[in-house]
Amino acid sequence: MAIYVQKFGGSSVADAECMQRVAQRVYDTAQEGHSVVVVLSAMGKTTDNLINLSKQVNPQPDAREMDMLLSTGEQISVAILAMALHAMGAEAVSMTGPQAGIATDSSHTKAKIMSINPERIMANLEKGRIVIVCGFQGLAPSADIATLGRGGSDTTAVALAAALKADRCQIFTDVDGVYTADPRIVKQARKLDSIAYDEMLELASLGAKVLQSRSVEFAKKYGVELEVLTSFDRTPGTIVKEEVEDMEHIVVRGVAADKNQAKVTIQRVPDRPGVAATLFKELAAANVNVDMIVQNVSEQGHTDMTFTVPRDEINRTRSAVDGLLEAVGAAGAIYDVDIAKISIVGVGMRSHSGIAYQMFEALSEHKINVEMISTSEIKISVVIRSAYADEAMQVLHQAFELDKNSKPAS
Amino acid sequence: MAIYVQKFGGSSVADAECMQRVAQRVYDTAQEGHSVVVVLSAMGKTTDNLINLSKQVNPQPDAREMDMLLSTGEQISVAILAMALHAMGAEAVSMTGPQAGIATDSSHTKAKIMSINPERIMANLEKGRIVIVCGFQGLAPSADIATLGRGGSDTTAVALAAALKADRCQIFTDVDGVYTADPRIVKQARKLDSIAYDEMLELASLGAKVLQSRSVEFAKKYGVELEVLTSFDRTPGTIVKEEVEDMEHIVVRGVAADKNQAKVTIQRVPDRPGVAATLFKELAAANVNVDMIVQNVSEQGHTDMTFTVPRDEINRTRSAVDGLLEAVGAAGAIYDVDIAKISIVGVGMRSHSGIAYQMFEALSEHKINVEMISTSEIKISVVIRSAYADEAMQVLHQAFELDKNSKPAS
Repeated sequence: MAIYVQKFGGSSVADAECMQRVAQRVYDTAQEGHSVVVVLSAMGKTTDNLINLSKQVNPQPDAREMDMLLSTGEQISVAILAMALHAMGAEAVSMTGPQAGIATDSSHTKAKIMSINPERIMANLEKGRIVIVCGFQGLAPSADIATLGRGGSDTTAVALAAALKADRCQIFTDVDGVYTADPRIVKQARKLDSIAYDEMLELASLGAKVLQSRSVEFAKKYGVELEVLTSFDRTPGTIVKEEVEDMEHIVVRGVAADKNQAKVTIQRVPDRPGVAATLFKELAAANVNVDMIVQNVSEQGHTDMTFTVPRDEINRTRSAVDGLLEAVGAAGAIYDVDIAKISIVGVGMRSHSGIAYQMFEALSEHKINVEMISTSEIKISVVIRSAYADEAMQVLHQAFELDKNSKPAS
Repeated sequence: MAIYVQKFGGSSVADAECMQRVAQRVYDTAQEGHSVVVVLSAMGKTTDNLINLSKQVNPQPDAREMDMLLSTGEQISVAILAMALHAMGAEAVSMTGPQAGIATDSSHTKAKIMSINPERIMANLEKGRIVIVCGFQGLAPSADIATLGRGGSDTTAVALAAALKADRCQIFTDVDGVYTADPRIVKQARKLDSIAYDEMLELASLGAKVLQSRSVEFAKKYGVELEVLTSFDRTPGTIVKEEVEDMEHIVVRGVAADKNQAKVTIQRVPDRPGVAATLFKELAAANVNVDMIVQNVSEQGHTDMTFTVPRDEINRTRSAVDGLLEAVGAAGAIYDVDIAKISIVGVGMRSHSGIAYQMFEALSEHKINVEMISTSEIKISVVIRSAYADEAMQVLHQAFELDKNSKPAS
């Protein structure tokens, strides 16, 4: 008997009606003869409403208490799904993260799963019950409830799949799989049958909000094959798995855009050791997540330094940077929020050259100026004007013929 | 250093603003140098909303899952109050029922507290923290969350006060104390300084919704002095305590009306042993809470049997009774929902006679007909037409001069 872990989040669990659709899906899987462990996120706007409530009494709520508060969202979900399954005649039991044996570290609101004791889940599966577990939470060493941070339910599902040696880990989302590009922007975008963990990681961190990066890292580490699919119909989704040789024939797997970036240029920084260290130490202290960093060629002992940050961290960045300009002897700083980062991703890049050239040429043919470039083994990212973001995606999607199924690399 | 247990429920915790008022009250108590343990109910309509949500997926939800669902309401409250106290600079920590060491039996949705291990609470009090505990819940032997049933937060407060040997147990409610009668109905109603446990028990079970009966029983059993007061201002409330000699001078402590009753008369029941047993066994099986029972004088081998039930159980009662009429050989049944039960209560009745006479005479003078009578050592209840309920309360309040402070019995 195969063990299936099925995770439902987002609009799949928006309201009671959605919960009944989820119950039907889970019930059908159980009826096919599988043992089913379900992981749920909070329903609809529950988490946002709780956060708003907390802000009314304390602008900076304590992390432990935030976990006490937010963990109720998933607890409501699991109880409701258990009730919906009971109404269909199924045997089902809900569990909080702590009850499910999920132990975390003590970093409240951003805890990491340390271990899972699956005894209670297994005992219930053996009794023929569907087990429904709160995503996003576990028990900290202090016996307090800790949450994994928003979106952590994917990680719960993957960790449970690993601990239970599950045969399948299905992540039900608002979309029916992983696409070569955002289909709302690129009409020719095509759903992928499969994608490598590393490709998914690059896409996840690049703004394709299908799976949380941490859950993909976890899946890779423990060799858990994921399926990303929708709860709204029964079409197969996209399998996220270990890279196989066949995958290398596809040079570019997908295109992604991140429109939530801002660019900061520090002008005429003295070209001497330690300046970059001072700057980025200060930004780290201000809790700013710096992404791309480019230092232009220096002239006459000075250099311009450019980096990108998430757009909603631009104010924190500005306070940190403005206070440093004099100390590091810079001439000034330019803050630019009208940018977008466009990336192409594919494990095939490792063994193919000339991809960067193809990318820049395609953009150039459409008069799209590249302002920054950053590359890794399996991706190339460029920063352009945000107004051209959608066009750039379409151009690159076409240039790399992503609409064509499994086209071998040239 | 005295330990104070303070319980806030109902409109005291309706929203974030109320929570801030509660936080101020708790903070002030701590500032006076006391150790404070706070017990909270769910905020505003949280519990009702959760029940509605459950009904959308299952008309008869499983009790264990219902507890999983409803226990989130208090969990939200305790986290929010902790945050509000933090915002005032106080040290505070929230705990679920299980975290606070509250162990219950396994009767989900109506569990009883079996024991309390106050170690974790005490350790936190010793560190100078305000401890905020979820009312209404505890840990069942199965390691599942169990709730004490609605209104059970009072019981949590009393049980904690007993376990912690607290110096004071304050129950903050929508009203500022226990009155001689409902002040919305009887204008001359007067707030009592103190009342005996037994009197409070009779009043609680008679529809004066100030304190839950179970919490008063608990307080009596463990000798916990309660104070009933309001969170909206700083006036002293009413102390509920062991009966003292002085109390006996007051014959009638208060008047209460229960307008949620219905009367059932079974006509011409054969006057032979076992009929009543059959009838009330069936009603118990149908989960009907029978209150007053009166059997009229029998004539010619038949008798009329009359009893009262909560009005919202009248349909269940009807199904049970109609199916039995033939079996017990009764002529028929009359169901009457237009009644009210009016009671006078006072420990002084034990040592004073003639009270029933005074009560009936006062009602009779106002042409209010008494349909049923039931008495205990410290109370007399009558059933009258519901239309006369308010008038009857006023009449009795005046007849026993309840508006006059501490008037000795004549």
